[in-house]
Amino acid sequence: MEIKVDLFSDTGTRPSQDMRRFMAEAEVGDEQLGEDPSVNRLCRMAAEMMGKDEAIYLPSGLMANQISYAVHTKAGDEIIMDQTAHPIHYEAGAVAVISGASIKALAGEGGIFTADDLKAAIRGYDYHSPQTRVVSIEQTTNLGGGRIWPLERIAEIAKIAADNGLKMHMDGARMLNAAIAAGVEPLDYGQYFDSIWLDLSKGLGAPVGSVLAGSAEFIEKARFWKQRLGGAMRQAGIIAAGGIFALEHNVSRLKEDHEHAKMLAKTIDAQPGLEIDPDTVETNIVLFSVKDNKTELFADELLKEGIRVSRLNGKLRAVTHLDVNRDDIRFAVKNIEKIANQIFG
Amino acid sequence: MEIKVDLFSDTGTRPSQDMRRFMAEAEVGDEQLGEDPSVNRLCRMAAEMMGKDEAIYLPSGLMANQISYAVHTKAGDEIIMDQTAHPIHYEAGAVAVISGASIKALAGEGGIFTADDLKAAIRGYDYHSPQTRVVSIEQTTNLGGGRIWPLERIAEIAKIAADNGLKMHMDGARMLNAAIAAGVEPLDYGQYFDSIWLDLSKGLGAPVGSVLAGSAEFIEKARFWKQRLGGAMRQAGIIAAGGIFALEHNVSRLKEDHEHAKMLAKTIDAQPGLEIDPDTVETNIVLFSVKDNKTELFADELLKEGIRVSRLNGKLRAVTHLDVNRDDIRFAVKNIEKIANQIFG
Amino acid sequence: MEIKVDLFSDTGTRPSQDMRRFMAEAEVGDEQLGEDPSVNRLCRMAAEMMGKDEAIYLPSGLMANQISYAVHTKAGDEIIMDQTAHPIHYEAGAVAVISGASIKALAGEGGIFTADDLKAAIRGYDYHSPQTRVVSIEQTTNLGGGRIWPLERIAEIAKIAADNGLKMHMDGARMLNAAIAAGVEPLDYGQYFDSIWLDLSKGLGAPVGSVLAGSAEFIEKARFWKQRLGGAMRQAGIIAAGGIFALEHNVSRLKEDHEHAKMLAKTIDAQPGLEIDPDTVETNIVLFSVKDNKTELFADELLKEGIRVSRLNGKLRAVTHLDVNRDDIRFAVKNIEKIANQIFG
Amino acid sequence: MEIKVDLFSDTGTRPSQDMRRFMAEAEVGDEQLGEDPSVNRLCRMAAEMMGKDEAIYLPSGLMANQISYAVHTKAGDEIIMDQTAHPIHYEAGAVAVISGASIKALAGEGGIFTADDLKAAIRGYDYHSPQTRVVSIEQTTNLGGGRIWPLERIAEIAKIAADNGLKMHMDGARMLNAAIAAGVEPLDYGQYFDSIWLDLSKGLGAPVGSVLAGSAEFIEKARFWKQRLGGAMRQAGIIAAGGIFALEHNVSRLKEDHEHAKMLAKTIDAQPGLEIDPDTVETNIVLFSVKDNKTELFADELLKEGIRVSRLNGKLRAVTHLDVNRDDIRFAVKNIEKIANQIFG
Repeated sequence: MEIKVDLFSDTGTRPSQDMRRFMAEAEVGDEQLGEDPSVNRLCRMAAEMMGKDEAIYLPSGLMANQISYAVHTKAGDEIIMDQTAHPIHYEAGAVAVISGASIKALAGEGGIFTADDLKAAIRGYDYHSPQTRVVSIEQTTNLGGGRIWPLERIAEIAKIAADNGLKMHMDGARMLNAAIAAGVEPLDYGQYFDSIWLDLSKGLGAPVGSVLAGSAEFIEKARFWKQRLGGAMRQAGIIAAGGIFALEHNVSRLKEDHEHAKMLAKTIDAQPGLEIDPDTVETNIVLFSVKDNKTELFADELLKEGIRVSRLNGKLRAVTHLDVNRDDIRFAVKNIEKIANQIFG
Repeated sequence: MEIKVDLFSDTGTRPSQDMRRFMAEAEVGDEQLGEDPSVNRLCRMAAEMMGKDEAIYLPSGLMANQISYAVHTKAGDEIIMDQTAHPIHYEAGAVAVISGASIKALAGEGGIFTADDLKAAIRGYDYHSPQTRVVSIEQTTNLGGGRIWPLERIAEIAKIAADNGLKMHMDGARMLNAAIAAGVEPLDYGQYFDSIWLDLSKGLGAPVGSVLAGSAEFIEKARFWKQRLGGAMRQAGIIAAGGIFALEHNVSRLKEDHEHAKMLAKTIDAQPGLEIDPDTVETNIVLFSVKDNKTELFADELLKEGIRVSRLNGKLRAVTHLDVNRDDIRFAVKNIEKIANQIFG
Repeated sequence: MEIKVDLFSDTGTRPSQDMRRFMAEAEVGDEQLGEDPSVNRLCRMAAEMMGKDEAIYLPSGLMANQISYAVHTKAGDEIIMDQTAHPIHYEAGAVAVISGASIKALAGEGGIFTADDLKAAIRGYDYHSPQTRVVSIEQTTNLGGGRIWPLERIAEIAKIAADNGLKMHMDGARMLNAAIAAGVEPLDYGQYFDSIWLDLSKGLGAPVGSVLAGSAEFIEKARFWKQRLGGAMRQAGIIAAGGIFALEHNVSRLKEDHEHAKMLAKTIDAQPGLEIDPDTVETNIVLFSVKDNKTELFADELLKEGIRVSRLNGKLRAVTHLDVNRDDIRFAVKNIEKIANQIFG
Repeated sequence: MEIKVDLFSDTGTRPSQDMRRFMAEAEVGDEQLGEDPSVNRLCRMAAEMMGKDEAIYLPSGLMANQISYAVHTKAGDEIIMDQTAHPIHYEAGAVAVISGASIKALAGEGGIFTADDLKAAIRGYDYHSPQTRVVSIEQTTNLGGGRIWPLERIAEIAKIAADNGLKMHMDGARMLNAAIAAGVEPLDYGQYFDSIWLDLSKGLGAPVGSVLAGSAEFIEKARFWKQRLGGAMRQAGIIAAGGIFALEHNVSRLKEDHEHAKMLAKTIDAQPGLEIDPDTVETNIVLFSVKDNKTELFADELLKEGIRVSRLNGKLRAVTHLDVNRDDIRFAVKNIEKIANQIFG
């Protein structure tokens, strides 16, 4: 089955020819010793974007989460996050293994909880219980459907956190999608967080890595954890250059992905047998339901036409990204209409 | 303030004169080397009661939970339990620290979830996620209000667990209360669990310790963890003897505690301003609400009369036990009536 | 085989009738809530003895070590101790499990290293390596043969530690033996340590427990770890009373154990086929060698006469204690002479 | 100071123009989902080279060590390795943090211990002690001076390991140097190990990564740990292609590095004030001493001439590699002679 339009995930984006050329010419050195000029340049760019002292380049976003939690907590502490958050479902239980910390999962809406939810979840000082230490926010909410944490909500959350001596962490896997869609600068987010990272290998189209930013003190501690977890590489400038190229060329175009997602949502909303609230499609993720236990059938029929989507908790998920253009979306729209009418019409 | 009737918790029960005499005469040896006759005798009694090969004596019930999880899991695994369960709230985050395991909290009713809840929570085999390994059940449910896991529910749960290769663990902090109230033998419970323990220091009135039972292979591994966590003692026969005495004399009398709890519940149900569903009082724990934000006031007034209860998640909790007799309960009943009428009458 | 003189270990000492009576009459409460008067009294006594703000009662000495390391370190840190130290050989690998810390083992003499050894072992600040955080000293050295860390050596070590920002910990399993033998007060030791504990269940003859002392801040953190590891008990006053009795009655008599050990050492030194340097017998542990691969034979012959010793790294170890009196030692001396002459004469 | 000849480490080798071109043209996909053709090809090549079922691509060699230990051990186990081994000094204490395992350090010669050393270090089955589970060997020995573990020694070690149920692990950071120098195939090594990896970013000149090989079952478990530690990347084919190129073009040329190292060793041996045993220079690492506390001075003088070496435990270390050619070595030789004569002549 040849895949013509791959809406499976934005994690599959491939580097363009221009990006490849840029990477091939990158200056490199031993990044474990701080001697890779491309890595250093990327880190300065990212730190500046997010308004932080320093940044550190890592092979994955997962490692950025885990290092942040490890720096912020002591064994026995508790981290508050939404029940849909990535570390609960896709990080192989790493929080407990690496930090010895527990997770308190909140039941937010679309992955987004309120300041009151947070307030109610903070534990009192008591040697019987884990002690709350970190609030972690995923921007945008992946399992929540690409929803955007509004800046005002973040500010409210940060206020409660500050009042209770909690650290603030942003899992910025799709933070630039949020920034572009909401018209907010990354450093507007950055001001509220003790640790914040952005992913270079999703919508931005770079092949590998994330950049984690924070205070100089935070990054100094993060370096120990980067080494300890095996994230210290050598001539990583090759892939860091992909990140530089991505930050320079692929950020503002994320709005196209969001338009594409809205086109899909509108189409889905208009079909018999398919269910979606199009207002919840804020960025590049389209979560929808298929009635009458036809979810699998619908996905299979799409795949026969060369359109790949993913299954998620009983729903289907289509993700738009750099490798899906307007024509691809038109092709997807046409086929969604056709198949929905075949099955439910 | 002299406390006349202490309903704060059954953890405060004191050894009787007879138990003290029995302990003072106990034969002892070095239990870390397996040479303490009283410890050995207690372990044989407990293993037999719960229908297991062997048992191990521990300084606390918390350690029995943690050792069981450590034996059953590998770092990165997940343990399923109710959201009210003791390890989530009162074990200082030990599961993550000691086992490197995560907890999946289910939203049961009164601390009791269904087989379907369990089924839905078991994760598929996938290297992205923690892998489900253990189902943990608290008998009775402390924060759930002393509710009893019915044997049939346990059997259904155990069936799902077996189908999915999961270990079954019972936190038996008040398991004998359940057994007495439900008319079930401990070994009826024991048959469904890979690890199961009973607490000697709550309703049973012994000063210190729990006994954890399982297969010979399980107990052999548990011994390493007992040593590792600092639970290996020396002439522990002194306190183990308290456990022997308790198992011989203080089990059947738990029914009195349950009667006392029902007397309190009935009284509370009849008062203005107090709220309880008396049908939920199945053992020795009485959870009730006070209207109009008078919870603190009500508890304070009780304390002025020498009656101590505890506060729990916005409710009041009264626990009956060995050191509270019929007259004490009558005294409490009288004062609950009086105070409720003063405040709400 | 009836054992007449048990020199296996001082961990097997049994509580006397007077101690048992004292324990049976102990006032008790819920020690997990800080409400046990006997536990509280023991802790005040121990804190005062060691010159510290506060102390905490624990079910074992192992737990005192582990809690101290857990409070002093962060995951990834390193603890320096002698290669013969207890945590390396008898704590089931707990340091790595509980603290995520590594151990740097020094090759001292008789379990005692020098200030220069320490200096050379401290690592520089570098994110590639574990960071040195704690110096741990075992007083007396068990596998080292009951040797005493002299106060001057401790002072030198403490100076290096202070210069390098390291915490000082004393494993005081037999610290009172050292104090009595060296004519030093426990608080003379205490002044050099951030955490220090004494064992109640070895030479002191109490059945269960250790008392760990430190600053108020240290003990506050230790309380979380006591809970987390399952060391929080209930009416522990029963056994804590054994500790009170031991501190009041059984400390000064340790000098008899030391005399007994020297009697044994002198006898052993005079026999053909047995090897010992009697000057190394400073407290209650007698380590000696048997020539010509007759170690097992010698131990077996002793056992036939009712004398039990232990085997340790190819040597034999005899430990004197409360349950071995002058007549027992005379009996042992006579039989050592007899058997040595049978085998080697 | 311009560096003309960089003998600091072989970790600093830079990708050649041909390698860069090859990488820029690599086919890529989402390697976290197993969909990257270049990663898959590299893994097949490496598995075949080392004679194993499967292999897994990782961002660093450190992660290959840590994943292997995590798969082979349970919390509380012990790993045996030489006291100079990389995990003890340069992995930020990761073994304890990630696996909860302890390290037993052996005092080998040049980083190489004997079968008898191993035998003596294996612990008996006893719940007091950590349980020996893994033997770890570093090929070649970095801090040991680039010494080669001979195949016969490995076979003897593996025999003892098998007799005692221990897993065998090879840290193959410079395993291909050993293979080339000893005339041994990687799969000759592979047969003795449960886990074995080779580094692509040292002498081989690829920018990033290692490949870890083992049985299908081992690799399946390793995948969980790769995810958990943050080693799962996306379009990693870009850098994996560097590894493919390196395995195809840069292996046999390692013999030049070894010749260069011998040239340096011979020169050093002939100088006044410098000390080396040239027979110990078996691969690309040259460890030598400078007399009369002139170590720092000698290194500074070299640097003034544009020659960088590193300092290691009071010695100097020169490492030859891909980016140092015959002329560079001649330049270094000339300057070593000149400076040695200036200082000591």
